[in-house]
Amino acid sequence: MTDSSSIAIEGLTGRANAAARQMAEADTTSKNEALLRMARLVGENREELIKANRDDMERAEGQGLPSALVNRLVFNEKKIDGRITSLEKIARLRDPVGQFRKIQRTDNGLLAGRMNVPLGVILMIYEARPHVTVNAGAFALKSGNAIICKGGSEAASCNGLLAGLWVCALGGAGLPPEAVQVVSLSHEDVDALLERSEDIDLVIPRGGKKLIETVAEKSRIPVIKHYEGVCNIYVGPDADTEKARKIILDSKLLMPAVCNAAETVLVDETMRPWLPELGEVLREHGVEIRGDEAVQEAIPDAKAASEEDWATEYLDKIYSVRVVGGPSEAIDHIAAFGSGHTDVIVTENYSIAERFLRQVDSSVVLVNASTMFCDGESLGMGAEIGISTDKLHARGPMGLEDLTTYKHVIRGEGQVMGDF
Amino acid sequence: MTDSSSIAIEGLTGRANAAARQMAEADTTSKNEALLRMARLVGENREELIKANRDDMERAEGQGLPSALVNRLVFNEKKIDGRITSLEKIARLRDPVGQFRKIQRTDNGLLAGRMNVPLGVILMIYEARPHVTVNAGAFALKSGNAIICKGGSEAASCNGLLAGLWVCALGGAGLPPEAVQVVSLSHEDVDALLERSEDIDLVIPRGGKKLIETVAEKSRIPVIKHYEGVCNIYVGPDADTEKARKIILDSKLLMPAVCNAAETVLVDETMRPWLPELGEVLREHGVEIRGDEAVQEAIPDAKAASEEDWATEYLDKIYSVRVVGGPSEAIDHIAAFGSGHTDVIVTENYSIAERFLRQVDSSVVLVNASTMFCDGESLGMGAEIGISTDKLHARGPMGLEDLTTYKHVIRGEGQVMGDF
Repeated sequence: MTDSSSIAIEGLTGRANAAARQMAEADTTSKNEALLRMARLVGENREELIKANRDDMERAEGQGLPSALVNRLVFNEKKIDGRITSLEKIARLRDPVGQFRKIQRTDNGLLAGRMNVPLGVILMIYEARPHVTVNAGAFALKSGNAIICKGGSEAASCNGLLAGLWVCALGGAGLPPEAVQVVSLSHEDVDALLERSEDIDLVIPRGGKKLIETVAEKSRIPVIKHYEGVCNIYVGPDADTEKARKIILDSKLLMPAVCNAAETVLVDETMRPWLPELGEVLREHGVEIRGDEAVQEAIPDAKAASEEDWATEYLDKIYSVRVVGGPSEAIDHIAAFGSGHTDVIVTENYSIAERFLRQVDSSVVLVNASTMFCDGESLGMGAEIGISTDKLHARGPMGLEDLTTYKHVIRGEGQVMGDF
Repeated sequence: MTDSSSIAIEGLTGRANAAARQMAEADTTSKNEALLRMARLVGENREELIKANRDDMERAEGQGLPSALVNRLVFNEKKIDGRITSLEKIARLRDPVGQFRKIQRTDNGLLAGRMNVPLGVILMIYEARPHVTVNAGAFALKSGNAIICKGGSEAASCNGLLAGLWVCALGGAGLPPEAVQVVSLSHEDVDALLERSEDIDLVIPRGGKKLIETVAEKSRIPVIKHYEGVCNIYVGPDADTEKARKIILDSKLLMPAVCNAAETVLVDETMRPWLPELGEVLREHGVEIRGDEAVQEAIPDAKAASEEDWATEYLDKIYSVRVVGGPSEAIDHIAAFGSGHTDVIVTENYSIAERFLRQVDSSVVLVNASTMFCDGESLGMGAEIGISTDKLHARGPMGLEDLTTYKHVIRGEGQVMGDF
């Protein structure tokens, strides 16, 4: 943890930049060694981490922080096992640095391509979730960047411990320990950091909407935002109701508080006879229903949905349910009320599935699969540093390559354009 | 041309968004037809365009605008021929919309890939250069976007004519004429536009550093900046002096006023005996030399370079020349004084060439080729909408694909993560 003053801020970014220059040249073996050392250290310090997390949770509860925040603070056995697995997976992923794309021999005989290079210095600003301290550090280091992890004060004990483990893991692998700096900063210091566009290449805020908006508003540095998810499941014509049932339950119940949990079920007019069964299934699993008139008619205990419900991220065991006249109405509803995060169609109709995939403009669009698959690990990224709700640079789950940029590398034999 | 008031601004972005929705669904044939119609219309209206441009140039000269700006205002026979060729080339390029990348069958049996989709609405803010009105419109339309081209008042006559031609070309192909809106706006209206992050997806400023800084400072919308180029040519160990001579001349003389023209020649210590010949060649071509002490010793008419010279974009027939102790010193010089735009090494030494390509962190890095090849047309992009000096989303020459984003498209068979 670094203490805060404007000189300290300069020191912080100065160290990050020096580390970034070394990390850009670091070989893959050393980077993988640091990841595996971190995996080992997290395992070895499991009990201390759980104890520190318990302190954080008790303090948070004592301060009366919102229960959603307290929930996201959890760093238990299962979370720790998940982090160890992710660190090992990320070590096995191909190093993105130095890889080439779009290689071509141009008309003038040049050999041109795009070579992946690290972005430089990344600033991660987040609340709760100590596992982000592990994931973000792992992704930044494997992709040859330096990162400043600015965690929330509510996770101070756990993050403090993880900060130390990163220093050991990096140093032990012969890499600069400043490649992953975990810091606690005042609001003023964060504001000062967000001004330093010369020293920081990318800001990733993760947390509540308010946090993200504030960062985006103040930053002079490019920001990739991670906003809320108002995710929809459209039970379309010819839907397999068994698939629909499983997908609707999984998308809500696996982790109701995450951004890719579904909030709304749109039921096609033709699937209306299935509504009572859906009502039954949701009741059994303790999911509250807020429906339009058609839904309230078919499911007696459904509450009435207001216009606001269609655009609400409940982060809780509640579904808003609406009957739509067909694919066009479903797609329009998603455009109007969804947040462009993750949307699903359940159907056995080929043409309607293809149309849904083409016309829904969201970061992740699925046919016959749970919204939970909007997830870096499932998509072969090892884990994810976040789920971008922006359109530029990266959209949806962000992996290693999304923390790199490229340079055009051109090999010539003396070519010129003019004749001097 | 649209007149300006805050209601007009809303109308402008409203029309752009409506057009963007249609353009996202437009078929490739219609988009290509609009491009070929524009090519024909530019050809048919050649004389009117040249006359309008002459009016703009006379007015600019009369107002005493800087000669560099007046130069960039030229829209003559050659420029017009170039635009027609580019339009035809862009029509022949593959439509980026709907293309898939990174297709994989995931471990859970999902078929996942990234599908290119248009960004939406692009705002282009630029000075002089009426050819940007053609290029930017062409790129935006082929990539399924809508664009607002905010040209400078100094090019008002020529841009006004081009605005009309775009309307005809789009309408004739059955596409929304508002897909390319060419407007003249007050500073206040531009400021108002830059606030509308809900209505505009990307801002591209092109012009002087001041213009770009102002836009980046004020914008609440993501900006891809097109800054100056302080480009270096390093004549390294074992350089082929004939290649060096041609590359140094071409990189300065073909178009001294463009951002990828070279400004500095770094001569390796081992190549010092070649300095008098270099001095001779540059003198013959009327290029002024500003050198360090070693250079002044070898080239008697070289002026003394100040520290400032190494970081100066002359945009004129001037080279700063410096002797460096070896590749490390050359790479350090480029990191310290270059602008990360385009840098070249001339050498026949394999390992030094590879090291230069790896270690110089610029948007374009070349071996044995002119800086002029930092150019979308040479790199197979048809032309370019600009040369990004940013690291996020696009770096270096920007083509069609750089005006798209992607969505994750996932095809399942009922997959879920949990078991409910």
